[in-house]
Amino acid sequence: MSPSSLDELIEALRCLPGVGPKSAQRMAYHLLQRNQRGAARLSQALQRALEVLRHCERCNTFAESAVCSRCANPQRDPALLCVVEMPADLAMIEQTHAYNGMYYVLMGRLSPLDGIGPRELRLDRLIARAADPALREVILATNFTNEGEATAHMISDLLAARGVRTSRLSRGVPVGGELEHTDSGTIAQALIERRAL
Amino acid sequence: MSPSSLDELIEALRCLPGVGPKSAQRMAYHLLQRNQRGAARLSQALQRALEVLRHCERCNTFAESAVCSRCANPQRDPALLCVVEMPADLAMIEQTHAYNGMYYVLMGRLSPLDGIGPRELRLDRLIARAADPALREVILATNFTNEGEATAHMISDLLAARGVRTSRLSRGVPVGGELEHTDSGTIAQALIERRAL
Repeated sequence: MSPSSLDELIEALRCLPGVGPKSAQRMAYHLLQRNQRGAARLSQALQRALEVLRHCERCNTFAESAVCSRCANPQRDPALLCVVEMPADLAMIEQTHAYNGMYYVLMGRLSPLDGIGPRELRLDRLIARAADPALREVILATNFTNEGEATAHMISDLLAARGVRTSRLSRGVPVGGELEHTDSGTIAQALIERRAL
Repeated sequence: MSPSSLDELIEALRCLPGVGPKSAQRMAYHLLQRNQRGAARLSQALQRALEVLRHCERCNTFAESAVCSRCANPQRDPALLCVVEMPADLAMIEQTHAYNGMYYVLMGRLSPLDGIGPRELRLDRLIARAADPALREVILATNFTNEGEATAHMISDLLAARGVRTSRLSRGVPVGGELEHTDSGTIAQALIERRAL
């Protein structure tokens, strides 16, 4: 009995991750009742993003041109390639101002349960990118979750077979972290990977 | 450094209730990476809903015409008017098949902390609607939350002053409910409102 355009909006909102029927309904009412300007802006932003966004040919992140501004920047060191899972991870590393090399964004991670294997991740493209003769080292900066670790190992194996040097971000106690509030797995890892002073 | 159309999409997604910067980012990546068809559908559904949806002149719910199909239905009893907070509440009552009267949808509830008082809820429109001479009883079916109860009391007072009879949904132990698993406030209410057999 509810109008079809409302039903269709509620159904369409369910394409958002983590949004079930109840929250889709709540979102639709909120937009129509309290934020029609926001709804119009969202509609236009979706349309425009679909029109103009593509993947950078070099680093695979979202870009509005064939090669993104970061990859086209001659100030960055072409000898280093940092592999991350998502653009958000890239942004975190950029925020450190401790890295000036290039990136490769996987846009995901190995996740057999979700049917995401090496083929779905397009690891062949990363391997082609890593064949760049200017490259000296690939830094694996996937997450330290089970899936991120598995992804790093798989990439490391693939690149080692092609003679490319790989490294991994170090694990250990966070800066400012207190041992009392650090989980034992992290402390164990920090012991194993201890550094000479 | 990220493309402006991506930033704009992430920002626009934040107009959705309960969506902060991190989930907006996750939603944007998901739509662009895994569900471009869903994104296009959502953009169109938003645009169309904004174009065609309005409030029914009689019951105030979302409709695609001046008077919704339910209010225009001559089979429904014009002597009863059920007041609910949201269209979802109306849908729940319709599902019972126990009610064949008319509705008025507040599209909200009194919520002083959010700055929603009788004026913002447009209670004047409900009062005008309740002046219908065919009407015999107004059933208050707002939620049994603090805000819903306050809303019911305020409406009851306003209508009583105009000689309109009001009633409230009963409170008590849910059908199929076990006392052992019912909260004490509900049991207390069920005792106070006990019915003669």
